[in-house]
Amino acid sequence: MSPFKLYCFAQSGNAYRAALMLELCGLAWEARFVDYFNGETRTEAYKRDVNEMGEVPVLVDGELKLSQSGVILDYLAKKTGRFLPDDEAGRREVLRWILFDNHKFTSYFATLRFMVGLRGEGENELTAFLRTRARAAYAVADAHLQASDFLLGDRPTIADISLAGYIYYPERAGVVVEDYPALARWAGRIAALPGWKAPYELMPGHPLVLAATP
Amino acid sequence: MSPFKLYCFAQSGNAYRAALMLELCGLAWEARFVDYFNGETRTEAYKRDVNEMGEVPVLVDGELKLSQSGVILDYLAKKTGRFLPDDEAGRREVLRWILFDNHKFTSYFATLRFMVGLRGEGENELTAFLRTRARAAYAVADAHLQASDFLLGDRPTIADISLAGYIYYPERAGVVVEDYPALARWAGRIAALPGWKAPYELMPGHPLVLAATP
Repeated sequence: MSPFKLYCFAQSGNAYRAALMLELCGLAWEARFVDYFNGETRTEAYKRDVNEMGEVPVLVDGELKLSQSGVILDYLAKKTGRFLPDDEAGRREVLRWILFDNHKFTSYFATLRFMVGLRGEGENELTAFLRTRARAAYAVADAHLQASDFLLGDRPTIADISLAGYIYYPERAGVVVEDYPALARWAGRIAALPGWKAPYELMPGHPLVLAATP
Repeated sequence: MSPFKLYCFAQSGNAYRAALMLELCGLAWEARFVDYFNGETRTEAYKRDVNEMGEVPVLVDGELKLSQSGVILDYLAKKTGRFLPDDEAGRREVLRWILFDNHKFTSYFATLRFMVGLRGEGENELTAFLRTRARAAYAVADAHLQASDFLLGDRPTIADISLAGYIYYPERAGVVVEDYPALARWAGRIAALPGWKAPYELMPGHPLVLAATP
């Protein structure tokens, strides 16, 4: 079986979800570096040939080309039988948290971290708004995780892997995981799973990773 | 069978998706008005008894209580056999668009419309940011819909119903559907489906609806 190919770059937590799932499932995969910071996802060629939504990640499995991290997680979970409950109620709960993550937990923080943490922009009305929204979403997840080890109880699912997308990046932009004790303990549990790696160890394009290549 | 109960309020396009799906499927349902503008979703009681995420919509079907519009749409589609392809590739495509909608198409516009269209706030860095992001997402959907009548081809699915959440509200905040011709034609096709109603005709809490009650 030829390995999976993942369009990704190191700074993308959306791509990290897919890369982490591949690692946790012990699947062979290779990275196809996407030069996001030089505009590759915004080119007509990328939109035409790779992803009309102009985003990473994109997973290639033979003839299949899948985009949206939630779709990729669901696909890999069904293919491997890992990280997905087999009852309908559990699957609804997984989808509920993946949607919450995409809409509220990750989206505000990812934008804030890009502006403040990666581009070094100053504070303004926009960054204040994003930080307030991100903190509110972190508080929702923290409250939920006070009652269980993982989002769905005592076993990790793709809902956890989705929520973990931007948790391990060092650029926090004022949204600090340790301020949310249950969330911080949960992050430790995910990081203790066999095969776990941090995002900058897993995907190409970060200076630390580039420096390690010959 | 007792009717479905939907926690909602007129101005919420997230709730409108669920209300529209119930109507298009011809299901009996009753609205449970949520007093969002007086803070009901932010109370501890609401988070404890209705939705820990502090949001509408919430659908009650007997003993089941479901939140996140994407979960509700998926649940009703499976229950009725309507608006969902029965092959795995089609279901992945539906999920892909629902995720894109939650992350990019609706989220930026809904926040912008709330600030500028409902609360009458002035323009600033935040509203400029939200409008730029919303327009980019509208352009992605418009480009896709140039090739087909609905998101998945010639038949509507819950992906279309999700994307339609905020399309029919009169408060546009500078993101005008008519500026995207394929999207505008698609919106007309959805509005022509049997059972379609506009959001302010379908859910309680808007002045126009309140004025119509005795």
